[in-house]
Amino acid sequence: MTEVPVARRKADTLYFQLAGEIAHAIASGVLQAGEKLPSIRKLSSQRQVSLSTVMEAYRELEDRALIEVRPQSGFYVRNKPSVLIAPELTQPPQSPSDVVIDPMWLPATLARLHDIKIDFGFAILAPALFPNQQLQRLLAQVTRQDPDLIADYGRPAGDVELRRQIARRALNWGGQFEADEILITQGAIEALNLCLRAVTQPGDVVAIESPSYFGLLQILESFQLKALEIPTHPQTGISIEALEFATRNGEVKACVLLPNFSNPLGSLMPDENKRRLVELLAERHIPLIEDDLYGEFYYKGERPRPAKAFDKEGNVMLISSFTKTVAPGFRIGWVVAGKYHQKIEQLKFINTFSNAMPLQRTIARFLESGGYDHHLRRLRRACHEQVGHAVAAIERAFPADTRLYVPQGGYVFWVELNAAVNTLQLLQQALKEGISFTPGSLFSPSHSYGHCLRICCNETWSNRHERAIERLGELIQLQIGQPLP
Amino acid sequence: MTEVPVARRKADTLYFQLAGEIAHAIASGVLQAGEKLPSIRKLSSQRQVSLSTVMEAYRELEDRALIEVRPQSGFYVRNKPSVLIAPELTQPPQSPSDVVIDPMWLPATLARLHDIKIDFGFAILAPALFPNQQLQRLLAQVTRQDPDLIADYGRPAGDVELRRQIARRALNWGGQFEADEILITQGAIEALNLCLRAVTQPGDVVAIESPSYFGLLQILESFQLKALEIPTHPQTGISIEALEFATRNGEVKACVLLPNFSNPLGSLMPDENKRRLVELLAERHIPLIEDDLYGEFYYKGERPRPAKAFDKEGNVMLISSFTKTVAPGFRIGWVVAGKYHQKIEQLKFINTFSNAMPLQRTIARFLESGGYDHHLRRLRRACHEQVGHAVAAIERAFPADTRLYVPQGGYVFWVELNAAVNTLQLLQQALKEGISFTPGSLFSPSHSYGHCLRICCNETWSNRHERAIERLGELIQLQIGQPLP
Repeated sequence: MTEVPVARRKADTLYFQLAGEIAHAIASGVLQAGEKLPSIRKLSSQRQVSLSTVMEAYRELEDRALIEVRPQSGFYVRNKPSVLIAPELTQPPQSPSDVVIDPMWLPATLARLHDIKIDFGFAILAPALFPNQQLQRLLAQVTRQDPDLIADYGRPAGDVELRRQIARRALNWGGQFEADEILITQGAIEALNLCLRAVTQPGDVVAIESPSYFGLLQILESFQLKALEIPTHPQTGISIEALEFATRNGEVKACVLLPNFSNPLGSLMPDENKRRLVELLAERHIPLIEDDLYGEFYYKGERPRPAKAFDKEGNVMLISSFTKTVAPGFRIGWVVAGKYHQKIEQLKFINTFSNAMPLQRTIARFLESGGYDHHLRRLRRACHEQVGHAVAAIERAFPADTRLYVPQGGYVFWVELNAAVNTLQLLQQALKEGISFTPGSLFSPSHSYGHCLRICCNETWSNRHERAIERLGELIQLQIGQPLP
Repeated sequence: MTEVPVARRKADTLYFQLAGEIAHAIASGVLQAGEKLPSIRKLSSQRQVSLSTVMEAYRELEDRALIEVRPQSGFYVRNKPSVLIAPELTQPPQSPSDVVIDPMWLPATLARLHDIKIDFGFAILAPALFPNQQLQRLLAQVTRQDPDLIADYGRPAGDVELRRQIARRALNWGGQFEADEILITQGAIEALNLCLRAVTQPGDVVAIESPSYFGLLQILESFQLKALEIPTHPQTGISIEALEFATRNGEVKACVLLPNFSNPLGSLMPDENKRRLVELLAERHIPLIEDDLYGEFYYKGERPRPAKAFDKEGNVMLISSFTKTVAPGFRIGWVVAGKYHQKIEQLKFINTFSNAMPLQRTIARFLESGGYDHHLRRLRRACHEQVGHAVAAIERAFPADTRLYVPQGGYVFWVELNAAVNTLQLLQQALKEGISFTPGSLFSPSHSYGHCLRICCNETWSNRHERAIERLGELIQLQIGQPLP
């Protein structure tokens, strides 16, 4: 990244660091909305810094709209930290498109071709967030106890111990499966391939959220499937009404959705919508492929139920993975495929035959040990904090007409900029300074969303991330010709 | 397995066990063709058994056509152990077929539905043949040194350390690749999927050996590709003349072959045929997908060169795997895809994203350590012995009109029976007695080879295997109505 002198100077000061700590406490919920902050005098003595340092820190936090002064009373955490406007239902084109994705703009390509210092593009959580030491010990134990696992082809359906653990965990949201109903796959992405191979023919139309994850679009492209983009709300997910209309004539052969914390929108479908969705598609004999990759990443309350919870007819193929939650390097996903189970087991057999047995068994032991829940709590907290910081930084640094919906789970969110902004161009400028994100057009087969972008929050927030967002804000403002604030 | 009284009695005698040991020594090459055996008196005193036991053992070995008496001289290992007729060039139908494989007869299905005691069906070597302890220690070491590998998504192309080792080993047969030209896949089977996805469209015609591995046929079926079966010789592989004729009109869009120790034939193409094959396909712009899964399994001499060795234009996609040779449970294959490299890397990205990093790194270290070559020598010897025993047993137990080509590598071979035999029916009878093999019709989209079968030799040979082959021989003879010998 080239020099960003203004931000650098600011970030190095004592007051800015103090403000950062308080912002962190707010983002992580240690300081709640409406809570009173210590007086300037008190904080100065607590932290052994000058009164003016505290005053400047509080002013900085006011600027960031994180705290407010109440006259004759003191400083308070703001009730509604977001000053940005929520985006509305998306409006994709109404007819199916062939899918053509330019691999040039994929995070993997960018990471190979550019020297990226701050990567908001790849949805890949930092290694430090995972229980690597624990898994290392379990893996050594599992293979020491049974070295023949290393020579074990396993079965296409996967290790029965792991499948039993997955079935056990599904009880958390009311899912009642037998181990035999679960198939292990090489990441969720293999499951997505197999499900689509099972229920579609080249040329078929598949209904998807708009915007949708580019990996899904690339799979559609490779199978010569057409995508029908359905209007989707950044808060509540796909529009059931629009889907109902789109599926009226039998043209749609399958539907692929992420009801829980979709990627890239971060949207969460209410249970009632999930129920209606499942009923509608069952009635119309359209299989639903549900990607629940981010379902465990809820910040508050209960784990949201997958749409599969409302499936009475085996019409929903529920996909998830341990790649996002436990061990990215193990590549273990799974699918409960209902009435498509047998077909998908056959496809697993011919696509990759099976997953590595030692890794499956290690995950099974980790789940059995109870270490998983403890780890998930930590991981959720970290993602919530990281997203909180990124959203707060964007609120400060991006123009006032930026639209953003703060997700209730996951670690990606969607930013809608002034319609005049071209985020492909923005990315090219940002890459020169070592900053990356994913441009909106990559999430739409009709190349809509040219003024949007996706932010992934993979790492513990730092001043470097803060500065990168500030710099993006500057580049956006330069593009739309607004004066810098 | 139900009782097989005659064989059981025989197998339990002392002379039969002695004969078994000598047969083993012949199969494994300890005793060479033409070598003189100890006199009856000498062996009797060496082994402390009666003269009549040695005589009966030698008679048994004579019956098996393994040794012969030379008058006034003694007993000698026979020069030409095979008494069976070599099969001829196969004669599949001349037009392409849609592929429909009944999963009912797949080894995986059979293993699930039946209580199989002796499995000649699954091509899965016994765990005892693999360096599991050594890999266990390396895996523990690799993940202890770098626990973050467990959280490392890796790159779609794979671990560069492993790719470097693969490139280094290719030098053994004159292959000169950069690490960057190699892509790691989830077993060879994923590579096969990706290569076909890269160069074909649904409805395209793909030229294959006849017979061909049923896994390949299932992949063709799932992609709605048509198969054109090309006449293939059990000794020298696909007929270049027939392929030349079949590809004259531009209908064939790709060709998938196993030039080295093909599955199921066990055939090995001579170098000159490989050269002609590569030239022909390059000239006609037909990509060659070469599956070299068994290339390391040669019994004698030098490692046979893959067809890729003759590829000047990057038109050959060379696939291989460590699944057969080192660690079935790690699921690590690879492909050198020439001019299709980039396309296949993109497909890997969307099919399974990447392989497990800890396992890739472990194999890389194993290759680096030199343990691989030592292990391969042991493995080849074991396969050679196992195949030798199975062939010898078939020679004794099967009818005289059985045709069989003894492979020069690998651990599977092909048996052509009297045209009156129905091997599907034979299998059903054998399964009732706990014996399994793969019926010939599974290896042909036109369901040719109903009188053939494939034998896989996965385990160290034992009396149980001997009896199973004897029993198969009895069942065959019952089917064709010949009297038992």
